[in-house]
Amino acid sequence: MTRPVTIALDAMGGDHGPSVVIPGAALTLERRPDARFVIFGDEREVAPQLDAHPKLKAVTAFHHTEVSVKMDDKPSQALRYGRYKSSMWRAIDATKTGEADVTVSAGNTGALMAMSKFCLKSMPQVDRPAIACLWPTVRGESVVLDVGATIGADAQHLVDLAVMGAAMARVVFDIDRPSVGLLNVGVEEIKGVEAVKEAGRILRESGLPHLDYHGFVEGDDLGKGTVDVVVTEGFTGNIALKTAEGTAKQIGEYLRAAMGRSLMSKIGYLLARGAFSALKEKMDPRKVNGGVFLGLEGIVIKSHGGTDAVGFASATELGYEMARENLMAKVREMVAATARPGAAPAEPQQVASGE
Amino acid sequence: MTRPVTIALDAMGGDHGPSVVIPGAALTLERRPDARFVIFGDEREVAPQLDAHPKLKAVTAFHHTEVSVKMDDKPSQALRYGRYKSSMWRAIDATKTGEADVTVSAGNTGALMAMSKFCLKSMPQVDRPAIACLWPTVRGESVVLDVGATIGADAQHLVDLAVMGAAMARVVFDIDRPSVGLLNVGVEEIKGVEAVKEAGRILRESGLPHLDYHGFVEGDDLGKGTVDVVVTEGFTGNIALKTAEGTAKQIGEYLRAAMGRSLMSKIGYLLARGAFSALKEKMDPRKVNGGVFLGLEGIVIKSHGGTDAVGFASATELGYEMARENLMAKVREMVAATARPGAAPAEPQQVASGE
Repeated sequence: MTRPVTIALDAMGGDHGPSVVIPGAALTLERRPDARFVIFGDEREVAPQLDAHPKLKAVTAFHHTEVSVKMDDKPSQALRYGRYKSSMWRAIDATKTGEADVTVSAGNTGALMAMSKFCLKSMPQVDRPAIACLWPTVRGESVVLDVGATIGADAQHLVDLAVMGAAMARVVFDIDRPSVGLLNVGVEEIKGVEAVKEAGRILRESGLPHLDYHGFVEGDDLGKGTVDVVVTEGFTGNIALKTAEGTAKQIGEYLRAAMGRSLMSKIGYLLARGAFSALKEKMDPRKVNGGVFLGLEGIVIKSHGGTDAVGFASATELGYEMARENLMAKVREMVAATARPGAAPAEPQQVASGE
Repeated sequence: MTRPVTIALDAMGGDHGPSVVIPGAALTLERRPDARFVIFGDEREVAPQLDAHPKLKAVTAFHHTEVSVKMDDKPSQALRYGRYKSSMWRAIDATKTGEADVTVSAGNTGALMAMSKFCLKSMPQVDRPAIACLWPTVRGESVVLDVGATIGADAQHLVDLAVMGAAMARVVFDIDRPSVGLLNVGVEEIKGVEAVKEAGRILRESGLPHLDYHGFVEGDDLGKGTVDVVVTEGFTGNIALKTAEGTAKQIGEYLRAAMGRSLMSKIGYLLARGAFSALKEKMDPRKVNGGVFLGLEGIVIKSHGGTDAVGFASATELGYEMARENLMAKVREMVAATARPGAAPAEPQQVASGE
């Protein structure tokens, strides 16, 4: 029998706080009965929610916290007033001390990343952390990173992203040698920025055992699922992610408008309702909620701040899986196995944690 | 009465050459009866096509060329063997000499940009050219640039892009003060790269009369149509464009699969066929085909290389409109009206024309 997975939750994170986090955790428990929880938050708000979910309460260690990080605070502000005592910090610290296996928060990304770095520290060989997401494709899902932790990347940082992304893909997709592509503006070797070209050269020549370097991919390869792991720096990755989300919403609106414009199409819609709800399910952004912080000495999952209980449960389950499959050990092993050539130290600009 | 618009065509560009270019031009003529054409290409391939479209032939000046630029040649190669004599060069040159008002080619982007720069030259105040596209949104369309001419941008180049994009938006949307947003990873002022922040400061403080600076926008604002003009550097812009195209295709596949999976949904599909074809039309990438080269002393339109006659006609009509509304004069006027602060000269890396 495997030991249970313990998930630390920042109950005060997100636009709706405990009223989404606690029902979300209860949903997770229904689907992952061996999950255990450590929850941090203001007991005046959390206790009534926990009372409403007795099964969850029975497997939860709850800790009262007075301080909550606000959604619009700068990372430096949040660190100043929230370090050591906020629900966000304490949830991260629970993963550091080993009380929990993974931390999940819907709190503000910048503050969460700054506190995670401060509390957990970066892995020895990784200069900068990254945020990875699971991107839905026509073939299933791909790991895409960095979607917003760090702006700008030199070749070595891109190689680090490739290695960490491949470790995550091994865990999520259960394949030994995930294929990895570098996001670029053209598939020909002549195109693109120097750092991307250089990273491609390193990956091609390094012969890493647990990574199958595919070459360059373009924006439209994301939806095609051309590779298991797509690597790019955080500015472009964040914009690609939000562009795809926006395009999906846009087409959803077109579809609604088209189906409502005549009696025939309304009848057709009713008959095909099952098909449409399957489609809606497929396009539901709540199902792919959860950014995984990689490169730190512990796993932290960032949920969308505006999501509901279903979305928060997706993020929490993603955390559960990452912990259950021992993502940290896989990342450590792969990073350690990567010989680092004498590249100049990366000095990219920090976004999520900087001012 | 207005004078006719003359369009120079590179008949040998694209994956299918004259078999797409000539029928595409004929389609354009049907919809824009006052269009005139100057066509360059190999007469062995072009003449039979022109004979098949007598109305087009009657308003076309055809010039035989022996040399055709290949789709996979590097820009430097294409320049070496194709300068002065290829169909691509001569089509560009026709706009330079004034024989034509605009040039359209489906040939390889890098070669087309390199030849356009060499032949037409950059505008005096613009350091680097850009490629702008019309992006479909839920509210209509937006101008998005740069989608792949130049990788990397300093603040001044982003300001140039804003000014040129606004000029194009004035022409296309017929509004006096288009709203302009800078693509960034967050709407808060604290986020993003230095160049984007600095460009935002310049645009906010410059008080340009024909441009309404909105602030930062994110990837999902593209589909929403939050602003009339979205400005970003070419790497991110190209990836955002292809990501959106890929996402639209992906959802189209989901939709087809969903509608085919049960008898009920098939019947529903048949009843709602009109709605679906309206949707398909809305999502048809051929309708938004055409990248506009900005920042040069003449207008060149790049069509997708793999498109068909309908798609090529879209690019040609876009060129027609840009010429009819006198885009060049509007860009010149707006660029000249923009005071350039003492910014360091831009030295971004060239993509479309570089090796």
